[in-house]
Parts: sequence; C-alpha cells; structure tokens
Amino acid sequence: MNEATIDQRLTGDLQERMPLAGTLGIEFFSAAPGGVRARMAWLPERCTSDGILHGGAIMAFADTLGGFLAFLNLPDGATATTTIESKTNFFRAVRSGHIYAEAKALHAGRSTIVIDTELSDDAGKRVARVTQTQAVLRG
Amino acid sequence: MNEATIDQRLTGDLQERMPLAGTLGIEFFSAAPGGVRARMAWLPERCTSDGILHGGAIMAFADTLGGFLAFLNLPDGATATTTIESKTNFFRAVRSGHIYAEAKALHAGRSTIVIDTELSDDAGKRVARVTQTQAVLRG
Amino acid sequence: MNEATIDQRLTGDLQERMPLAGTLGIEFFSAAPGGVRARMAWLPERCTSDGILHGGAIMAFADTLGGFLAFLNLPDGATATTTIESKTNFFRAVRSGHIYAEAKALHAGRSTIVIDTELSDDAGKRVARVTQTQAVLRG
Amino acid sequence: MNEATIDQRLTGDLQERMPLAGTLGIEFFSAAPGGVRARMAWLPERCTSDGILHGGAIMAFADTLGGFLAFLNLPDGATATTTIESKTNFFRAVRSGHIYAEAKALHAGRSTIVIDTELSDDAGKRVARVTQTQAVLRG
Repeated sequence: MNEATIDQRLTGDLQERMPLAGTLGIEFFSAAPGGVRARMAWLPERCTSDGILHGGAIMAFADTLGGFLAFLNLPDGATATTTIESKTNFFRAVRSGHIYAEAKALHAGRSTIVIDTELSDDAGKRVARVTQTQAVLRG
Repeated sequence: MNEATIDQRLTGDLQERMPLAGTLGIEFFSAAPGGVRARMAWLPERCTSDGILHGGAIMAFADTLGGFLAFLNLPDGATATTTIESKTNFFRAVRSGHIYAEAKALHAGRSTIVIDTELSDDAGKRVARVTQTQAVLRG
Repeated sequence: MNEATIDQRLTGDLQERMPLAGTLGIEFFSAAPGGVRARMAWLPERCTSDGILHGGAIMAFADTLGGFLAFLNLPDGATATTTIESKTNFFRAVRSGHIYAEAKALHAGRSTIVIDTELSDDAGKRVARVTQTQAVLRG
Repeated sequence: MNEATIDQRLTGDLQERMPLAGTLGIEFFSAAPGGVRARMAWLPERCTSDGILHGGAIMAFADTLGGFLAFLNLPDGATATTTIESKTNFFRAVRSGHIYAEAKALHAGRSTIVIDTELSDDAGKRVARVTQTQAVLRG
C-alpha cells in the first residue's frame, strides 16, 4: 500500500468536508464503494506519551475512512450515516513514518452498514483493526 | 459536571505529556485513581461533516482519559499501560459547547485494567460510552 | 440480588418463548422496561474446561436478558428487535453457584436500543459486563 | 466449508473437555494453530423466539473455537488462556440447517492472542463475525 499515490483532489475535498481529517493530516489514496484507502503521518502532535502515535488518533483516522465508505455505500433514499458503535483492537505501536488504512464493507444493508478497517505500519505489519456499525439515515 | 473548575496545572502537564490532548484541547477537572474528569470544546477543526463533533475526536478524548486513569491505577512493579482494545457506543451528536467525560475503573487487575468512560453534553445528556482494556506493562 | 424470588410464571413463559433460555436454565426474578433480572446456575454441561462456566454460556445468558429487555422497550409501531452487535468484558471465573445478571437500557431510541448488562457471582463480585445494540424492527 | 468431513475423534475429545460444546452439539472439521473449523446444527433448543438460532448460541459457538485456537497458539511457558473480551457483529438470521465457523489468529503475542471468527450459513452467506482477545496465563 506504501507505493500508492495520494489523490490530492480527493484529499482536499475530504479535509474540507470533514475538518478533523485535515487536523490529523489524513491523505487519501482512493475511494470507491468497494474500499477506501488512506494514510496518516506520525507527528508529535498526534502522539500520546513516549512518542507513540495516540490510539485515539488511530481510531479517529479509521472512523474517518469508515464514515466516508459508508457514505459511498448508501442505499437508495438514504442521505447520510452516523457511527453508532466502533470496536478497535490494537496490536503494535507506531513511533515514526505513516500508518495506512484500508476500509471495506462487511455488510451493506438497508438500515446499517458494517465496516472493517485494517491498519498497518510502514513495514506492512498490522497495527490495529476496527469494526464499526454505521446507521443509515433517511430524510 | 459543567460547574467544575479546570485544573490548569494538571491540564498543562497532561497536554505536554500526551501531545494529542493539546491538539484536541482536552481540559482536566480532576484525576485520581478513583476517576478522571475532563472536557473538550466543540470546534470546527474537531468536526466531521455538517458541524458535528467527529466521533474520532470523541474516542480520542475518551482514550486519553482512559490511558491516564490506567496509569493512576498501575499495580506495583508496573511501569505503563497500553490500550489493547476499545469499544464505543454513540448516542447523540454534539454540535456546539463542550463534551464532558468521566472515566472510572471497572476492574484493576495485575495484567489488565478495564475502564468505563461516560460522555455527556452541556445538557447532561449521554453522548457516548467507552469501555476499554488497558494491558499492564512491566519492565 | 441473591435474595430475590424467582418468578416461576415469567420463567416458564420465557423458557417456552426462547428455548435456549430453557436449555441454559435461565431463571427470571423480574422484568420491566426499567430492567430485567435473572440468574443461571453453574452446571458441568454449561462449562468450558476445568469446571469453569463457559464464557459463551455467560454471553448467551446476557443476550437473553438483553433481547427481552429490548422487547419491553419497543417504541410504538415496532414489532421486534434483533441483536446487531454485542461486546462483553470478562473479569472473573465462575466455578460454582449461580451467576446473576441485571440488564438496563442505556438508550432506547426509534431505531436502536442499547443495553447494558452487569453480571456478578454469588459473592456479588463483577463477573462480566455486556453492552449490546438491538435494532428495532417494524412491520 | 459445507463439504468438509467431521473429525469424530476431535469432536469427541473437545465435547468431553469443554462440556458446553457437547450441549450445543458443536462438530469440528479440523483444528491447527493456523485455524479451527466447526459447525453447529440449528435445533429448536438452541433458538430464541420465532425459530431463529439464538445469538447467544452463536457467540458460545464462536467462543468455543476461539478458546481452542488460542490454546493451540500458546507461547512457550504458558498453560492456558481465558477470554477477556469478545465482540460480535450479527448480519443475518439462521432458521434451519447449520452454522459454520472458522477461527483464525489475528495476533498471537506473549500476553494476548486475538482471534477472528467468521460465521456463515448453509448458503455460505456471512451470519456473524467475532473478534476476541484471549489472555495468556502462566503457571
């Protein structure tokens, strides 16, 4: 995933639409109903103690992809989604470089969309996994 | 919880030690092994689309309290903790004002500490609940 | 909770309506929109290895209460609920006696009901906690 | 997965060692550190209301595979594992036939083993997904 090219236009659009994505410097590679891919740089301001990328920054990164992927999978007549629950397992600390994420829909239903986001480091090692449920909103 | 006074010294110390807490403007009321209380202001840069406080900012806020509370509950011989899993349920959107959080330990064991964080809005209504497991690290 | 009296009629009705409740011998103390309370006996056939009550039996016990409590909190026009996600933290093994559970609604909305179930042993010590989301079904 | 052959000896051993596996009629196809595969028949006594396989039976089924897979991945010097948390997302009801599960380790560390279990129905459609953390016990 490390070799992919940042989609500057998509990144600009999404950072404008979802300001926290700008605050966290999330850069998007690609986005389609089948999956969203992005990265976020390690920076001191995104860390918890000891120079470790904050788990909260990782969850916010994944939630951003999940929300956008859910939007791309909206069923007919729906206008938006909202995260109703999110579960993260953490496997490894990130102390430099980037963290990469790929979000895919496990389930895209009429009332909920369930998304799986896999996160890895520069070496391709698994950093975290997020499973979350997005409720489909209408009207 | 809204009437409490910010502990400026604690807030400064923690924002320095955990830089993302500064990025997100987390302000601490109090911190003891029995509980940590804090707030975070709604700001556009912490939002997802439509001016709604980003669920990721909420999870990062709660994870910050959880990590610090776990530190305050470290058993003898332990040096640090790390979040190994975190589960959030979201109940209500925040569009202005502050979000308040109170973290308490559900379980403080030799190898894991489990923390419950309740989040509410200016009106005292429940915004989210986070349950997370912190692994106790030694040596 | 240990002193409460089993409601034999309620227990019979629910074991008939939800047969797994009978297979697991779930006995109900009380059930109202504000909460459902029940117990389940430790028995060898409900154990994993080493005579420890199986975590799966504990989750099934809690899910039974959660499903029934959600039913008692159905909004107007809704006909049923279904568990869409469930998260359990385990704190302590049960090797004899009973396990007690109390389920309460954290949130009862138009499309989802979120339930918190606290489980404890004969000594009143926390065994597990379950948070789950029930989707509200219509028509 | 439907075509696989039940391993009768493994099934007998595990149903004896973990009695709830017998109560629920869990039949094992295969078990190795790389994965455990099994099935459980729909039966009225494993149902909630309306003839739907009880979500609790599904979680107990998955937890049984997870516990055994964790045992097969124990690091040197460890003697057992215990489930410390488990998260399930449900996608589809099962009203007949069997439910199939395959458990794999997402992470096998010195202190925790994280397991992913995918569950599907006779038609191969996804019924549920379970992610759980097993703590490694020593001595």
